[in-house]
Amino acid sequence: MADVPATGLQLRSLVKKEGVLEISLATVPVPEPKPEEVIVRIEASPINPSDQGLLFGGADMTTAKVSGPPASPVVTATVPPAALKAVAGRLDQSMPVGNEGAGVVVRAGSSPAAQALMGKTVAIVGGGMYTQFRCIKAVQCLVLPSGTTPAQGAGWFVNPLTALGMVGTMRAEGHKALVHTAAASNLGQMLVKICLKDNVPLVNIVRRPEQVATLKAIGATHVCNSSAPTFMDDLTDALATTGATIAFDATGGGKLAGQILTAMEAAINRTAKEYSRYGSTTHKQVYIYGSLDRGPTEFTRTFGAAWGIGGWLLTPFLQKLGQEGTQKLRERVAAEITTTFASHYTKRVSLAEALKLDEIAVYGKQATGAKYLIEPNRG
Amino acid sequence: MADVPATGLQLRSLVKKEGVLEISLATVPVPEPKPEEVIVRIEASPINPSDQGLLFGGADMTTAKVSGPPASPVVTATVPPAALKAVAGRLDQSMPVGNEGAGVVVRAGSSPAAQALMGKTVAIVGGGMYTQFRCIKAVQCLVLPSGTTPAQGAGWFVNPLTALGMVGTMRAEGHKALVHTAAASNLGQMLVKICLKDNVPLVNIVRRPEQVATLKAIGATHVCNSSAPTFMDDLTDALATTGATIAFDATGGGKLAGQILTAMEAAINRTAKEYSRYGSTTHKQVYIYGSLDRGPTEFTRTFGAAWGIGGWLLTPFLQKLGQEGTQKLRERVAAEITTTFASHYTKRVSLAEALKLDEIAVYGKQATGAKYLIEPNRG
Repeated sequence: MADVPATGLQLRSLVKKEGVLEISLATVPVPEPKPEEVIVRIEASPINPSDQGLLFGGADMTTAKVSGPPASPVVTATVPPAALKAVAGRLDQSMPVGNEGAGVVVRAGSSPAAQALMGKTVAIVGGGMYTQFRCIKAVQCLVLPSGTTPAQGAGWFVNPLTALGMVGTMRAEGHKALVHTAAASNLGQMLVKICLKDNVPLVNIVRRPEQVATLKAIGATHVCNSSAPTFMDDLTDALATTGATIAFDATGGGKLAGQILTAMEAAINRTAKEYSRYGSTTHKQVYIYGSLDRGPTEFTRTFGAAWGIGGWLLTPFLQKLGQEGTQKLRERVAAEITTTFASHYTKRVSLAEALKLDEIAVYGKQATGAKYLIEPNRG
Repeated sequence: MADVPATGLQLRSLVKKEGVLEISLATVPVPEPKPEEVIVRIEASPINPSDQGLLFGGADMTTAKVSGPPASPVVTATVPPAALKAVAGRLDQSMPVGNEGAGVVVRAGSSPAAQALMGKTVAIVGGGMYTQFRCIKAVQCLVLPSGTTPAQGAGWFVNPLTALGMVGTMRAEGHKALVHTAAASNLGQMLVKICLKDNVPLVNIVRRPEQVATLKAIGATHVCNSSAPTFMDDLTDALATTGATIAFDATGGGKLAGQILTAMEAAINRTAKEYSRYGSTTHKQVYIYGSLDRGPTEFTRTFGAAWGIGGWLLTPFLQKLGQEGTQKLRERVAAEITTTFASHYTKRVSLAEALKLDEIAVYGKQATGAKYLIEPNRG
């Protein structure tokens, strides 16, 4: 307990009503934990695409400027009027950021459950993880298997549970195979491994030829490159082979969701026995769970009447699944954290380094293969 | 039975594989009904938007030409390559057209059920109604209330059941109010009357100011004109007042579906207590049930993650509802056929007249207020 300081740094994102984003490092007191709580010294927390909405607040980061001393930089950028409208609910509130992380329990409340965690390496979720010391309830901590480092455990929740949630949704909605876009991503590679283990046919859609190789190398069977001139035919073939009628799309904008539905309909109609004027009666579903392309979604309705496009989020999925089901998924992730659910980071940065404009320019792109890990207590 | 001829005229639509649509009148034998069947002399059958896909086969009707004698015209038109792909399943098959109709039973099979219908005015559904004599099972006939004319009963199925299906879907999916587009249509006016009777809050979206007046005149409370500069504000107000979170969209193409979701989200957020980074958790749904605008659907995802856009068709709704539930709806329609479910036709035409280019130019537009009734045995 002696080496826990009185205060720690915490990353904050603030959107001012005049349309200015301000990202800064606040010095906040390390609280005294209540009986059921512990203090986790956060050693690692990933920058996921799902963190960036809150972090950047819809700002145009090409307008970003940095000021202040190197140890305590302040990034400012302009939030365009349309984006400002979308974040009306958070204006002038300084928000902590960071969905998930891992670290060591350095102080514990008086309850036995909290005391039992002292010195343990734990993974946690719940926001505000881009911070040096995070107070959290003991029951919310997942103790990592012995020998697991915080860096290995930091990305334990968002990507693994989302990938498992896709397979779970596929099953719950009566489909037998699935499609995933931006499939070479960290999450996409986990999904490939889950589907191999669980014998679920998976159609991967990537945007570059080298990503086809990446996925084939870890055992993927069907990988379609959307930049290839044969894409629609390749996709229809893979859909006919697998029978996939549900897709999870990370891109959101553009024509991809509609192309998937069109290819699904074409694959189904290959075996149709008679003409159905309203298209096939098999329900075809695309869930948009990301927004790598922030532009509008556009589709031509050439896939009959039995189709749906919708938003998908992890939280409502877990709520529907219930506590027991969720606990099973968490335990699977812990058991396979260095295999199925291993994350690969291209760069590790301190809180102050995460605010450098040249780093923001890299991780802000959300490009496949450029994944950052924040180490709040680094250096 | 003496006045039933040996043959009758039947409208046929044929798309040839070389990309030519051919609409013609075939002379077909009037069959001898089996014991459980009857022959209905069709007196009236509406041209619904849902008939036009099969009728025109995706052809570009601005290229239409007519040939043959006036009593037996043949309309030909070009089917563009993209549309030809969408109708691959029906190429080179001569298809009868016309979803629903009404007429008089002029011949009956030997079973008591069939015999009981002799001379009765009945409403029927099942395709191939643009014909002079339609053979159908006795159990499929709905006997119209005494005094109801075939013209009054002809549109008994598609629009009434679709309107009732929207209210049924709203209830089944847990919404408490609904939105309808192209709301001044024949179907839209039925929906206004149903919702008034059943106390269901309804937000009507129309495209012209005079349509606002039409709907107000029959008792509609909320009518928003999408061509007004205040449309989005008007719509958000109406959604906030009614709490509508489900919409049925007849237009399909363009930005309207996305605008409705955006306005729903804004209406919900008016009463939000704290900032939710992924938007409201209330599910917002738009069902596309028509294609008045055949262009692409486009939306900007500014309505959180709890949303869906999908196709909607009457048949799967009725299948889910089951036979007993469907029968109740049919009985309601029969009882209210001259009130709630009254249809208004702007023109009545014979089969040959329906093939005149100047008539096709009018009803082919699917414009609100231009509804045609075919009277196959006219003149």
